[in-house]
Amino acid sequence: MAKQKPSIPSGTRDFNPDTVAKRRFIFETIRTVFEQYGYQPIETPSFENLSSLTGKYGDEGDQLLFKILNSRLHDSKDKVKIRSDFDKMLEQSFNSENISERALRYDLTVPFARYVVMHQNEITFPFRRYQMQPVWRADRPQKGRYREFWQCDADVIGSDSLILEMELVRIYDEVFSKLKLPVAIHLNNRKILSGIAEAMNATDKFMDITIAIDKFDKVGLQGVRQDLHNKGISESQMQVLEKFFSLTGTEMEKLEKAEELMGDSEIGKMGVGELKNVLNYLSLSGTTNSEIKIDFTLARGLNYYTGAIIEVKPVTVQMGSLGGGGRYDNLTGMFGLDGVSGVGISFGADRMYDVLEELKLFPEESLKTTQVLFVCFDEKGIEYALPIAQQFRKENISTELYPSAEKLKKQMKYANDKKIPFVIVIGDEEMKSGKLALKNMNSGEQRWLSSDEIISELKK
Amino acid sequence: MAKQKPSIPSGTRDFNPDTVAKRRFIFETIRTVFEQYGYQPIETPSFENLSSLTGKYGDEGDQLLFKILNSRLHDSKDKVKIRSDFDKMLEQSFNSENISERALRYDLTVPFARYVVMHQNEITFPFRRYQMQPVWRADRPQKGRYREFWQCDADVIGSDSLILEMELVRIYDEVFSKLKLPVAIHLNNRKILSGIAEAMNATDKFMDITIAIDKFDKVGLQGVRQDLHNKGISESQMQVLEKFFSLTGTEMEKLEKAEELMGDSEIGKMGVGELKNVLNYLSLSGTTNSEIKIDFTLARGLNYYTGAIIEVKPVTVQMGSLGGGGRYDNLTGMFGLDGVSGVGISFGADRMYDVLEELKLFPEESLKTTQVLFVCFDEKGIEYALPIAQQFRKENISTELYPSAEKLKKQMKYANDKKIPFVIVIGDEEMKSGKLALKNMNSGEQRWLSSDEIISELKK
Repeated sequence: MAKQKPSIPSGTRDFNPDTVAKRRFIFETIRTVFEQYGYQPIETPSFENLSSLTGKYGDEGDQLLFKILNSRLHDSKDKVKIRSDFDKMLEQSFNSENISERALRYDLTVPFARYVVMHQNEITFPFRRYQMQPVWRADRPQKGRYREFWQCDADVIGSDSLILEMELVRIYDEVFSKLKLPVAIHLNNRKILSGIAEAMNATDKFMDITIAIDKFDKVGLQGVRQDLHNKGISESQMQVLEKFFSLTGTEMEKLEKAEELMGDSEIGKMGVGELKNVLNYLSLSGTTNSEIKIDFTLARGLNYYTGAIIEVKPVTVQMGSLGGGGRYDNLTGMFGLDGVSGVGISFGADRMYDVLEELKLFPEESLKTTQVLFVCFDEKGIEYALPIAQQFRKENISTELYPSAEKLKKQMKYANDKKIPFVIVIGDEEMKSGKLALKNMNSGEQRWLSSDEIISELKK
Repeated sequence: MAKQKPSIPSGTRDFNPDTVAKRRFIFETIRTVFEQYGYQPIETPSFENLSSLTGKYGDEGDQLLFKILNSRLHDSKDKVKIRSDFDKMLEQSFNSENISERALRYDLTVPFARYVVMHQNEITFPFRRYQMQPVWRADRPQKGRYREFWQCDADVIGSDSLILEMELVRIYDEVFSKLKLPVAIHLNNRKILSGIAEAMNATDKFMDITIAIDKFDKVGLQGVRQDLHNKGISESQMQVLEKFFSLTGTEMEKLEKAEELMGDSEIGKMGVGELKNVLNYLSLSGTTNSEIKIDFTLARGLNYYTGAIIEVKPVTVQMGSLGGGGRYDNLTGMFGLDGVSGVGISFGADRMYDVLEELKLFPEESLKTTQVLFVCFDEKGIEYALPIAQQFRKENISTELYPSAEKLKKQMKYANDKKIPFVIVIGDEEMKSGKLALKNMNSGEQRWLSSDEIISELKK
């Protein structure tokens, strides 16, 4: 058999020890904050029934599902049946249960909705849950876009209290504070977007307007103008819209001015009222490290959200959103449970990784590895080191013994490559004296100590 | 559209918060010990190229791979091509790249071999790595057997030192000691099995012999006799085999007696020598909590292992193996890197969960959830509670505010259902006095304290 040259599927990644450690630092930071606010973890299967997923992400999303081939296709008796069904199957775009009835999950939101409906009798509402698992999309891979990536979601389902919007903003603030990564948290409300369309007297063009202003960041005011002009928005309508963009003052003042601009729009005023409440709760519960920004251009996955819309962006580096979320009023409706309001946020762990890396914000401790390596030159040395190494491990000192009596240079190279900070060389002298030479690999300093002294040194 | 009744694919599971917490307790215990011994984490993609996996697990394994449908099958121009190729595809049992070129990983060992070969120039050998990720098998689901389950593997590649066998046995011992789960660690060696076959003068029936004795546990000596008789093993050959099973004394004595029984078998003596060395290293490095058992009936995935064979079984409950492993001499050979020896172990997290549950060994702390819930009756109460709740969270006290002013009973039920140990009710009196009533939900006791006093109380 010819030897294969191994590779991995395009859009997927191997994570080496350093990368796993850094990713873990991100995940554990998020987890700690989620739990500080009483959010509880759930996990769902990597693949769902195809019928649970199709139709939930639009036509484009359906195309991006990774479908799993039914395993019974391997049975030869099925093949005959399938052969005759094949033309029919093609008509059905391979969605037929004949070929695939399962698909890898596309996000954590639809599986969560499915979970809530299936387990509704075991759940105490309001249900604060978090979930940190990989998702898969058959998207064209490109820089920063993978076919397997991790989502970290927190949602609360079964309450429409605005306390929860405040809580989720604080979770963002807390996580990015812990990561020492300065961010701005942008807030908007779907009802305000409706109100703006009403104030423009253009409710019939609501979708066009929100799609256009959502690109404000990228194309600027002139781009938005051009786009809306093409969609048939008049100059006078445009002037109304621009007033919302040019509001100044504190965030609360912007909201108050927006309220005036809304005119008679009940829904718009309701949206403003909700955001004012959220700002009020935020200020009552203490200052935030992150900038809180009212941003009337924010739309994000508009079909989905019915109230608050949230997005987080880094402020010291040019990069897109690090996460977002909002309120949705009938998520579980797709699985038959109506009238349950929810609100949630998501962290984009992959992009957070890139930003933290770029800003060199991963702390040394996040990369902590083996603390001490025993270097021996013969079987006698190994046997001498064994009980001491075990004693170190009992004291929670991560300890390795180079497993064979190689040359000093080779063993030191191993310590260097693995960034092990301390090395203990076991030679004849050490075995005679009972004292060990502890070498600090960074400073080069070497000290003769007893094993107990070394333990208290390393535990510092 | 008709409402769907949601379900999940057979053989998969939803994990609720309690279960996630308990599983996490297991995973974190294992991780801590792995890291104490200097093992470093890697992660590999959930799906691999089909060509990396097929042929690695035998015919049966190939059948159990979950294959992913190529997404370009959605393109209509491909359909024409595929239609004409279809008969050919059927001949090829759907292994054709036309329909699937990726599959979910079946275990962590083959992806690890692929990883080592791909990244050989970045890796410092010997490479101690661990990996804790789900794997998927299209097996018939049954009690305790899932189509998605987690493996926790530790392997060292690039050294044939027996120090590593000792290390892996100690890792098992340490993990199960931390879990307070008494186990026996069974040891054997593939070379001893070869030696036994030689001593029996039955090397031509080596496979039959090992397959038969591997079932000793289930079918007993009579079952093994019957099985081997059917395979053409004579009574006198059987008597030689039985001598190995009836050896008594300490584990070291058993090995010494086995060495005598081996007669002239060089390979057998080599196997005994290796195990004696491992026992010697184990005793030099200190006592173990687990029973260490030399077990000549242990064979486990024989095609695979070339030296030590290890298996862990619980001793206080009737249940199969909780993990196993061994030495393999040429794992990376399948990807073109020859001559690299490795040794590894695996923990069966799902079965460990079942045993810990049955023996009620999950500690209270593993289920730690929200510590305190604020209960409010009106907007004023909520606004009063907000800054205090935030102060608690800053002190790492997991805190929730019931998000709306519901009836006391409903809020107390929430605390009960979520097993929140402390509740603080914010009424008019509390707001006037500045003292808070901290109610212990277990004892029913209620004390009036300042928020600072509560913080120091809860941090105890």
